[in-house]
Amino acid sequence: MAPLRSAAIIFALGFGVGLAGDACHVASGTTTYEWDGVPEIWKSRAWFPFLVAGAVLLAAWSGRQAGLPERRVRGPVDVVIGAAVVLALYALTAVLRGQPATVSVVLTGAIAVAVWAWWDPSAGALAIAAAAAVAGPLAEIVLVELDAASYAADSDDLGGVAPWLPCLYFAAGAVASGMWRAIEAGQGSQSRR
Amino acid sequence: MAPLRSAAIIFALGFGVGLAGDACHVASGTTTYEWDGVPEIWKSRAWFPFLVAGAVLLAAWSGRQAGLPERRVRGPVDVVIGAAVVLALYALTAVLRGQPATVSVVLTGAIAVAVWAWWDPSAGALAIAAAAAVAGPLAEIVLVELDAASYAADSDDLGGVAPWLPCLYFAAGAVASGMWRAIEAGQGSQSRR
Amino acid sequence: MAPLRSAAIIFALGFGVGLAGDACHVASGTTTYEWDGVPEIWKSRAWFPFLVAGAVLLAAWSGRQAGLPERRVRGPVDVVIGAAVVLALYALTAVLRGQPATVSVVLTGAIAVAVWAWWDPSAGALAIAAAAAVAGPLAEIVLVELDAASYAADSDDLGGVAPWLPCLYFAAGAVASGMWRAIEAGQGSQSRR
Repeated sequence: MAPLRSAAIIFALGFGVGLAGDACHVASGTTTYEWDGVPEIWKSRAWFPFLVAGAVLLAAWSGRQAGLPERRVRGPVDVVIGAAVVLALYALTAVLRGQPATVSVVLTGAIAVAVWAWWDPSAGALAIAAAAAVAGPLAEIVLVELDAASYAADSDDLGGVAPWLPCLYFAAGAVASGMWRAIEAGQGSQSRR
Repeated sequence: MAPLRSAAIIFALGFGVGLAGDACHVASGTTTYEWDGVPEIWKSRAWFPFLVAGAVLLAAWSGRQAGLPERRVRGPVDVVIGAAVVLALYALTAVLRGQPATVSVVLTGAIAVAVWAWWDPSAGALAIAAAAAVAGPLAEIVLVELDAASYAADSDDLGGVAPWLPCLYFAAGAVASGMWRAIEAGQGSQSRR
Repeated sequence: MAPLRSAAIIFALGFGVGLAGDACHVASGTTTYEWDGVPEIWKSRAWFPFLVAGAVLLAAWSGRQAGLPERRVRGPVDVVIGAAVVLALYALTAVLRGQPATVSVVLTGAIAVAVWAWWDPSAGALAIAAAAAVAGPLAEIVLVELDAASYAADSDDLGGVAPWLPCLYFAAGAVASGMWRAIEAGQGSQSRR
């Protein structure tokens, strides 16, 4: 039961953060959905939050399976802070619409590095963060090519997606990499009580 | 003497944060004072910082009286960080003027949750934060109804006040809930030395 | 070798943060280089990142030489977080272009106080932060007087430089004050392993 419960919590967190963050991007006009083949949830087409939740779960599962040593052991409260910080960064990228790419990339990049170093400055977290920073934007470039969605003309300089997108995925990947273990740590401490 | 000293410190912090944060809202045009029956302090009518300071003191006193267990014990340095973080969030809401409500509410809400979970992720802090998130905006709605002040037309969607206002009060309430004990902890550690 | 290595790391960090932060200010139009007597690196004239790196190294060396007691002992990971947070604040000041001075000064000032209190809430760090908050803007005022560079007309209210500039230098000075010891702490812990 415990692994299923951890997976469900992580999926729900990824779903919620993806949905709320995406609502910011749609509200700011940063992104627009082009393909209307599935129903809407809040401001997103339904496929989006499921994709994000699946990706977060994959990153969390990879972090657990890799078993690389953490440099900071995290617990359930940290999961709340980590998810909130990533959502705040997500919403911030909506606020940055219209800023020069230099400004938005340096700001989100500096925050992303701080998030990784704060959450767990380990090689394992870095590897998953870096993988997310490559795979996430690549997946979104494919979605834009397929005409499922598009970025605004002032926010599409990275092959059709926003130049700060790797920074957002980097921060999300860093936090996700330790989520499974952080949630399990909480279950452990509760059963020990 | 010690309780009086703690109360005075908390009142002064609430007064200062309220005054500086309100100056941001007046400067950004987010809020305007309508009733000029009392003198101004900086950009505020004098009644405002006293109200805020009293509310902060009440929240801090409630947190102390309730005696609910903290999950993180805080000290005087944390009081400085907590007050500075709440003031930064206050000023950020001024910067967010003109942003879609979705963006400003998700951004300030995510930061508010992170502040609570960082400061003291306890049920007691959550209860006082939630009470502040309801009572603060309600009090401001009454003040707007009484024509004492008003929010700009682009920032008054929550019954005449800004939609992100509960998030700001939530963060302030969370930090205030533990302030009395954090200051007393400092007095204790100093007398123990 | 160890002191030279620490100095090189600090110089490189100051150089990198100065270069990336300055690129934000040039991109946002907050600052403009007037004197083109030296080549450009990224968006800066070459003298700027060297000046910043030297100033950071001086602040770090002062913190080490003063030998005042730290209230929080920092290590290499903290150096990464501290440098990233200062760079994020630097980039944020570019985003704040066009905001009323009240808003930008209160926001950056609150963040700067939080950075000091988080990094090392000691009297020594405060003294170096305060010295940086005075000396840094003064040096930039001289550079503006010498027509080496200029601030935009909406961002030059402090004798020709931006009113939030002391806050940025305060945060940078606070973090720099403990960098040398934080890096040495890492070398110590690695050799102990």
